[in-house]
Amino acid sequence: MAHNEIPYKIYLTESEMPTYWYNLRADMKNKPAPLLNPGTHQPMTAAELSGVFCDELVQQELDNDTREYPVPQEILDFYKMYRPSPLVRAYCLEKKLGTPAKIYYKFEGNNTSGSHKLNSAIAQAYYAKKQGLKGVTTETGAGQWGTALSMACAYFELDCKVYMVKVSYEQKPFRREVMRVYGASVTPSPSMTTQVGQKILAEHPGTTGSLGCAISEAVEVAVSNPGYRYVLGSVLNQVLLHQSVIGMETKIAMDKYGIKPDTIIGCAGGGSNLGGLIAPFMGEKLRGEADYDFIAVEPASCPSFTRGVYAYDFCDTGMVCPLAKMYTLGSDFIPAPNHAGGLRYHGMSPILSQLYDDKLMRAVSVPQTKVFEAAETFARTEGILPAPESSHAICAAIDEALKCKETGEEKTILFGLTGTGYFDLVAYEKFHDGKMDDYIPTDDELAAFRARLPKI
Amino acid sequence: MAHNEIPYKIYLTESEMPTYWYNLRADMKNKPAPLLNPGTHQPMTAAELSGVFCDELVQQELDNDTREYPVPQEILDFYKMYRPSPLVRAYCLEKKLGTPAKIYYKFEGNNTSGSHKLNSAIAQAYYAKKQGLKGVTTETGAGQWGTALSMACAYFELDCKVYMVKVSYEQKPFRREVMRVYGASVTPSPSMTTQVGQKILAEHPGTTGSLGCAISEAVEVAVSNPGYRYVLGSVLNQVLLHQSVIGMETKIAMDKYGIKPDTIIGCAGGGSNLGGLIAPFMGEKLRGEADYDFIAVEPASCPSFTRGVYAYDFCDTGMVCPLAKMYTLGSDFIPAPNHAGGLRYHGMSPILSQLYDDKLMRAVSVPQTKVFEAAETFARTEGILPAPESSHAICAAIDEALKCKETGEEKTILFGLTGTGYFDLVAYEKFHDGKMDDYIPTDDELAAFRARLPKI
Repeated sequence: MAHNEIPYKIYLTESEMPTYWYNLRADMKNKPAPLLNPGTHQPMTAAELSGVFCDELVQQELDNDTREYPVPQEILDFYKMYRPSPLVRAYCLEKKLGTPAKIYYKFEGNNTSGSHKLNSAIAQAYYAKKQGLKGVTTETGAGQWGTALSMACAYFELDCKVYMVKVSYEQKPFRREVMRVYGASVTPSPSMTTQVGQKILAEHPGTTGSLGCAISEAVEVAVSNPGYRYVLGSVLNQVLLHQSVIGMETKIAMDKYGIKPDTIIGCAGGGSNLGGLIAPFMGEKLRGEADYDFIAVEPASCPSFTRGVYAYDFCDTGMVCPLAKMYTLGSDFIPAPNHAGGLRYHGMSPILSQLYDDKLMRAVSVPQTKVFEAAETFARTEGILPAPESSHAICAAIDEALKCKETGEEKTILFGLTGTGYFDLVAYEKFHDGKMDDYIPTDDELAAFRARLPKI
Repeated sequence: MAHNEIPYKIYLTESEMPTYWYNLRADMKNKPAPLLNPGTHQPMTAAELSGVFCDELVQQELDNDTREYPVPQEILDFYKMYRPSPLVRAYCLEKKLGTPAKIYYKFEGNNTSGSHKLNSAIAQAYYAKKQGLKGVTTETGAGQWGTALSMACAYFELDCKVYMVKVSYEQKPFRREVMRVYGASVTPSPSMTTQVGQKILAEHPGTTGSLGCAISEAVEVAVSNPGYRYVLGSVLNQVLLHQSVIGMETKIAMDKYGIKPDTIIGCAGGGSNLGGLIAPFMGEKLRGEADYDFIAVEPASCPSFTRGVYAYDFCDTGMVCPLAKMYTLGSDFIPAPNHAGGLRYHGMSPILSQLYDDKLMRAVSVPQTKVFEAAETFARTEGILPAPESSHAICAAIDEALKCKETGEEKTILFGLTGTGYFDLVAYEKFHDGKMDDYIPTDDELAAFRARLPKI
């Protein structure tokens, strides 16, 4: 093992840290398709979007041209509290696998939100504060994004209203409690605090809620309360812009030590992590300066890229948000109840969808028991208990490294370790107790969801 | 705020990291009192101890003279996976408090065990492996130490048998699950797997267990199974030796930037964190090279230093372990059931007890609601959700910083942030729901426990 001058973990110094976000769209020949007004099917205007999102975030959302966005000093100051994140050489995993491949991972879990979500949460909170808003609303499922946003809002002393899917609120109280530490109000959804919530409760009194319903409630509260806007933790162009900090730091660190990845792997739910990690590398590929093999990894139980279609669809099951053109399974698709590994969104970032459609990246899907096996191997060798989401990337990285073992290739593999699994131990318990299976939707099931896509 | 050249977070480079542990006892004029055989009341010999502990750890336990212990390369390699830990300037907390004091904290929570416990767990696992043992046994309450040991044993492929207090096993399943990820076997205590467990269950069929009982089971399994030894996560001299890595890193980082702390604060349960943090600074004080104000912070509900006595006592409630001279509340003392903040050990490290008795450090006790208020202030300003244990140090650091606000003194305050509170959210929930109170034992209660101290 040639440790040489390259440290085990590479931490950039503060002066080496990136000072701008990279807007991948500027280098895309085929731009991502615009969001459409769900009523008129016309592209959403800045004016329309500004009722829901902060003004500067609307501008970022619509901007396909500006290549570099300087990160405001206030956000850089916050980043310093938990960034740079380490880029780690997985020596122990390599040894365990007996692979000639060199494996690196960028670890985003060393903060209380436990994931990369904080990178965009702090940006969105900053622009809300700058606009003089009182607060923001959002939805959360298991609570990862809600936690990140709560931390960001506490920092800027903004009010934070989180609508949390009721079944998670009741069964996973710990992330709810973290949000309370940071002063957020957390409401189980559906609730009586909104008209849409009241309507749903009247129609389905026993419902345990869904992400789509929570989105609808959060949006309603944002648009009906002066001084509030709605924020979202993935999918949107603006979110991928903020998350480019992951890839920027990674690239600076790799360039510093002369490391060039051959394969870059990220898990993909809505696409915020993958889009952020690959951004500067994909930029090089788009500009013809370098080539990389990009791999999106998704659960076999929620296979947007590998078995979805590229079409306009609703972003939420409540169908109140703009339409987005993306790889989608249909907005009412929900993974089987046995699915424990996160990444349950029915669609995919429009930016990543366009890149995938242009064959600039590929995608694989993996069954969840194999994901948890990879997670456990990783934990025991590298010490970090990974989030189930992140473990999809681990799983694909291990597969690639084992291919190198067969061929003898000394590839350099980079993957994004998005977060820790400290709040996912119920899923690990299922895995250990043999109560986890690998239900995969049938073609007929997927066709039924697809048949309900909007006709555009 | 003069950020100047001092980074927000100071990470040592790998070449700057300490390569030896510092044995504070070498510089103590009054050495800590020896462990006594519970039968003969004579000092424990190496031969007696080696049936329970690994040989090299016995040697470390008894060595009051060797000043520096080179850290074996295998342990340095593991340390690189999660160390150096950052030394952070708490700018946001300072601003919130409006204090002229400069506050620094050494953060030990960025690893899956969530605390500093891993520093000694990996050392103890290493020596067990080196001795050719099959595995180790230990007890754990809420699971912090058990988790650290499981990680360390997974790394060296040692068997790890953890006896976990039954009530925690059942009510706090998440740390148990983390231990399973790392391949440890976790047995709820008391159990039918040991004679002492069988006896206790026969006498008290409905018992939910205690730390003392779990210790007795773990020791029995270690001494009755060839190839096994027992390991402990605090109190012992060897543990403080390993934990000196905390203080060594801190001192190197501070020296590098010309920072001299006036006040050094750590929470104190069994003393492993405090002893490790202060070690090199206390060494300077003992050698007359510098002076520092050391503060041990303990819960008002378990006040070993501030209301205990300095006497020989049993280390476990089962009374099978050697006797140690320490500040103690009596070996059958258990904090009130409402106590949620950790640090529930009845005694204190013999090394720290001797230093305290020699008036080389002072101690304060704090009520738990105030501790959780400090924890929440810290989380909201510095971003990290702290462990309740660590929050005792935060609480005292805030008190010291507020005194500086009154006097105008620009003191430099250093405290140890031992870990994260991700598995302590039931306690935070109690705090938020107003279900936490501050029961403090009465003088009569403490006198009753004290009356049962062994007569030596």
